[in-house]
Amino acid sequence: MLEWLRQYRRAALPGDISAGIVVAMMMIPQGMAYALVAGLPPVVGIYASIFPPLLYALFGTSTTQSVGPMAIVSLMTASSLASLATPGTGLYGVLAAQLALMSGLVLLLCGLLRIGFLANFFSRPVMSGFTIGSAIVIAWGQFGTLLGRPLSLDMAPHWPSIALGVGALLLLVGAREFLAPLLRRVGVRASGADIVAKLAPMFVVLGATALVPLLGLDQMGVATTGTVPAGLPGLNLATSSHHWQALLQPALLIGFMVFLISMSGAQALALKRGGEKLTSNRELIGLGAANVGSALSGGFPVTGSISRSAVNFAAGANTQLASMITAGLLALALVAPTGWLALLPLPTLAATIIVAVLGMLDLSTLRTAWRYDRADALALLATSGGVLVLGVEAGVLVGVALSMGSLIWRASRPHIAVLGRIHGSEHFRNIDRYSAETTPGLLMLRVDAGLFFGNVEAVNERIDEELAAHAGTRHLVLVLSAVNAIDTSALFALVELNAALAQRGISLHLAEVKGPVMDRLRDSELLGKLNGEVFLSAAKAWDRLAGSSAAGTPVASA
Amino acid sequence: MLEWLRQYRRAALPGDISAGIVVAMMMIPQGMAYALVAGLPPVVGIYASIFPPLLYALFGTSTTQSVGPMAIVSLMTASSLASLATPGTGLYGVLAAQLALMSGLVLLLCGLLRIGFLANFFSRPVMSGFTIGSAIVIAWGQFGTLLGRPLSLDMAPHWPSIALGVGALLLLVGAREFLAPLLRRVGVRASGADIVAKLAPMFVVLGATALVPLLGLDQMGVATTGTVPAGLPGLNLATSSHHWQALLQPALLIGFMVFLISMSGAQALALKRGGEKLTSNRELIGLGAANVGSALSGGFPVTGSISRSAVNFAAGANTQLASMITAGLLALALVAPTGWLALLPLPTLAATIIVAVLGMLDLSTLRTAWRYDRADALALLATSGGVLVLGVEAGVLVGVALSMGSLIWRASRPHIAVLGRIHGSEHFRNIDRYSAETTPGLLMLRVDAGLFFGNVEAVNERIDEELAAHAGTRHLVLVLSAVNAIDTSALFALVELNAALAQRGISLHLAEVKGPVMDRLRDSELLGKLNGEVFLSAAKAWDRLAGSSAAGTPVASA
Repeated sequence: MLEWLRQYRRAALPGDISAGIVVAMMMIPQGMAYALVAGLPPVVGIYASIFPPLLYALFGTSTTQSVGPMAIVSLMTASSLASLATPGTGLYGVLAAQLALMSGLVLLLCGLLRIGFLANFFSRPVMSGFTIGSAIVIAWGQFGTLLGRPLSLDMAPHWPSIALGVGALLLLVGAREFLAPLLRRVGVRASGADIVAKLAPMFVVLGATALVPLLGLDQMGVATTGTVPAGLPGLNLATSSHHWQALLQPALLIGFMVFLISMSGAQALALKRGGEKLTSNRELIGLGAANVGSALSGGFPVTGSISRSAVNFAAGANTQLASMITAGLLALALVAPTGWLALLPLPTLAATIIVAVLGMLDLSTLRTAWRYDRADALALLATSGGVLVLGVEAGVLVGVALSMGSLIWRASRPHIAVLGRIHGSEHFRNIDRYSAETTPGLLMLRVDAGLFFGNVEAVNERIDEELAAHAGTRHLVLVLSAVNAIDTSALFALVELNAALAQRGISLHLAEVKGPVMDRLRDSELLGKLNGEVFLSAAKAWDRLAGSSAAGTPVASA
Repeated sequence: MLEWLRQYRRAALPGDISAGIVVAMMMIPQGMAYALVAGLPPVVGIYASIFPPLLYALFGTSTTQSVGPMAIVSLMTASSLASLATPGTGLYGVLAAQLALMSGLVLLLCGLLRIGFLANFFSRPVMSGFTIGSAIVIAWGQFGTLLGRPLSLDMAPHWPSIALGVGALLLLVGAREFLAPLLRRVGVRASGADIVAKLAPMFVVLGATALVPLLGLDQMGVATTGTVPAGLPGLNLATSSHHWQALLQPALLIGFMVFLISMSGAQALALKRGGEKLTSNRELIGLGAANVGSALSGGFPVTGSISRSAVNFAAGANTQLASMITAGLLALALVAPTGWLALLPLPTLAATIIVAVLGMLDLSTLRTAWRYDRADALALLATSGGVLVLGVEAGVLVGVALSMGSLIWRASRPHIAVLGRIHGSEHFRNIDRYSAETTPGLLMLRVDAGLFFGNVEAVNERIDEELAAHAGTRHLVLVLSAVNAIDTSALFALVELNAALAQRGISLHLAEVKGPVMDRLRDSELLGKLNGEVFLSAAKAWDRLAGSSAAGTPVASA
């Protein structure tokens, strides 16, 4: 913990300071916007941007990850709380913080149980499908706020809101598309131009906020943030046990997605830097601490944001000191006079959300998957569809089910080769790929995967098929050169296979059993009951058994 | 469908007839007992024993599987319905049949979607743990019925019930332990003796039923089955949509367990027979049809019972005609005068349940796992504990989570070897196991698993570690001889790896790419962007790259 701070090199400081400032300017509008997505007052987004990065800096492992509010996690928060409280009420805010607390505890527990390998749970297409579905749901949910009216044909348009919302939308899209190229053309460095373009939301929000008192837009009915109390609220735990129970399942799902989202972003950045070592179990603890921290300051669930982390990295962040500077600046913003925040127009904030999440609508994964592996493309579309039709929580479950199904399907189809001898040598190869000789009465199979519950049935079936195809087999040799482990289910299956083969007059032999596998088998009942032998090599098995067969002439195969 | 009937050989008939009769005599007390476990009147167990085996005979693939009521599925039924209706009410019976209908539809749908490979979902220890936990819950639940009183210190014992219950218990345990050896000693064949011992419950139940009117036990307060209407009831679909919704999740879980329980039994039998081909997707359809059939006759969820199927097999069943004969005999029992069934004493039925499920308390898997693989033993205990502490449904979920966790853990640890050249040859081997030479600047890694979302991070991490351990590497060669597939996630990871390595001045090369993998890669962006080459063999890569390195002298490794 904090090892990076003890080894801190002076040279890293300028980059960390500039990144800290840039990310703070990005974090203020983004935090407020994602609080709005979560159904909370915008200022709560600032509450959730102070402790989380500080705590992540203490416990996490990524050097440039920026932890705080994030669009998809905010959507999941809103969806989880929808049935429990009404947005805008005090209860809603209390439950949001409790949800962050429980998600944080779930993450801490997973970290202590060292189950970070679960980060391998989602395939890339499933994650992309989930992101696309969520982005559409979030953007759609903000249109009412953007236009100042619930989406309905019955209501007259509210032109001042539309002007602020759509105007901001056009400015932001324009900045994203044209600002960076323009700045580069006038001589600004490429990385600098990109960073300025990323700060456009800050300037648009500030400009719109300035327009409100100038034009008296709040008098004309434009919704604004409203009075913002100075300082941080505390954690309120006083809700009913019914609420705690109802939050348990959402906390599990949110904790899971917080981890997946943060890890995928951190891994992408680590790859760019090279040599950075992420430890998934420590990431779990860092994210858990960040969420508990968010709860303690009245916030809501947070995670690492890939877009903000990328800016952090591009703006020169070398260590987590950058994030600590960001947190310090946000804390300052909260103790400074916050009166100006009250006039921040919600339609403009909605515009920043829509532009941000439409940036997540990346269809390149879908295009690549469609050309490369149709099944992966369909999994992507099914996950997107799940989020759009069934909701974001069901979408996560659809994604889990698809990823797991694909994992089981793969695991249940191990590669199994019938081996033959390369003529005149001691080498044994797959007879489908090499011209290798076999001998009647002797069947040699090589299983190219560890034997475990997920594939023992497939192995059994294949053995049955090959025995049917090689009538008259008297010796079956399993060549275990690629088997690194045999679990208890597979051990039972081998014992039963041995007994079943004995009844059919076939001996079961093992060959090329690896050292660690043999150590375990030695204590098991399999070796005692085996009605064949254990051979050091396939060649030794061939020498011993090919001779003992009734018809001993080797047959060349194709 | 019914192919076996078209090919029916006369010689199979005597075995099928004797097995049909024996299983019918076993099915009558067992069906009634398991109806009681499900919280239903005993006669419903007979309703559920007629259509299911007939429909399974039409659609299933196992030749000797006996489909009908089964203890664990009955426990799950009771647990699912507990919050929806009170046992004994009409609504409870209607919901039980609807649950069978929905479970059956779930199974049919899974069969049509061809996702039978999910049978590989549970490891053997997890299944054993689930069975042990369920057996204890079932036995515990029957003690009140056995003693004629709810288990409570406040109530006086009801001696006539205790006499019937405990007496039956002692007789059944005695029969199980001593009857078969005794019969064998007096000259009965071993298989015949075993079958007679299995029919003990039938005789004990008949004897106890005869005692009731003889001794006037019903007048003394012994609970009996009560009047049984002749004939089969129909399916009642008229419940609220709230009920249908509440049954959805239980139907998914029950469908899942019906499939797993039936498949594990059928696979064990198929192995014993040898050469029998089970098709998991057709099994799903057979079991689905059986459950829909159970629903149509006012039954409850059913599955293949391993104990009954084993008796069916031992009694000579050659085809599903045996099960059809059993079904016919049970139908006869129902149209025959059913007055005698009314006097069947429940304490005796409870005794048959307790003896049957205690037979499921097989601790040998636990013992083997404990010695062979401690993690598997702990998974078994956790699943048992889950069933006992959290209930049977949560127990299934604990089992799924443990099995999946283990699957992901395995998948996320592919075997990766650093390759070196066997001196003077074209063979390349793992330098940890063989004395093989490496050359500075060139790192060759062989990944012994298909590349997919579950292991790409592990591969990335290992590459980073090896690059750190082999400073000065200019060429990284991935030897893909064992890679049968590369999914979309892994494709993206390779593209990103290629870009990241390029930034660090390292070329990425591929070698020994298999044909089908190459066909797919050829259309992908990876090959276009690759900053290295694709080699046909590891030897060709060595010849080309070892020479091009700055320091070209090979170094021998241990």
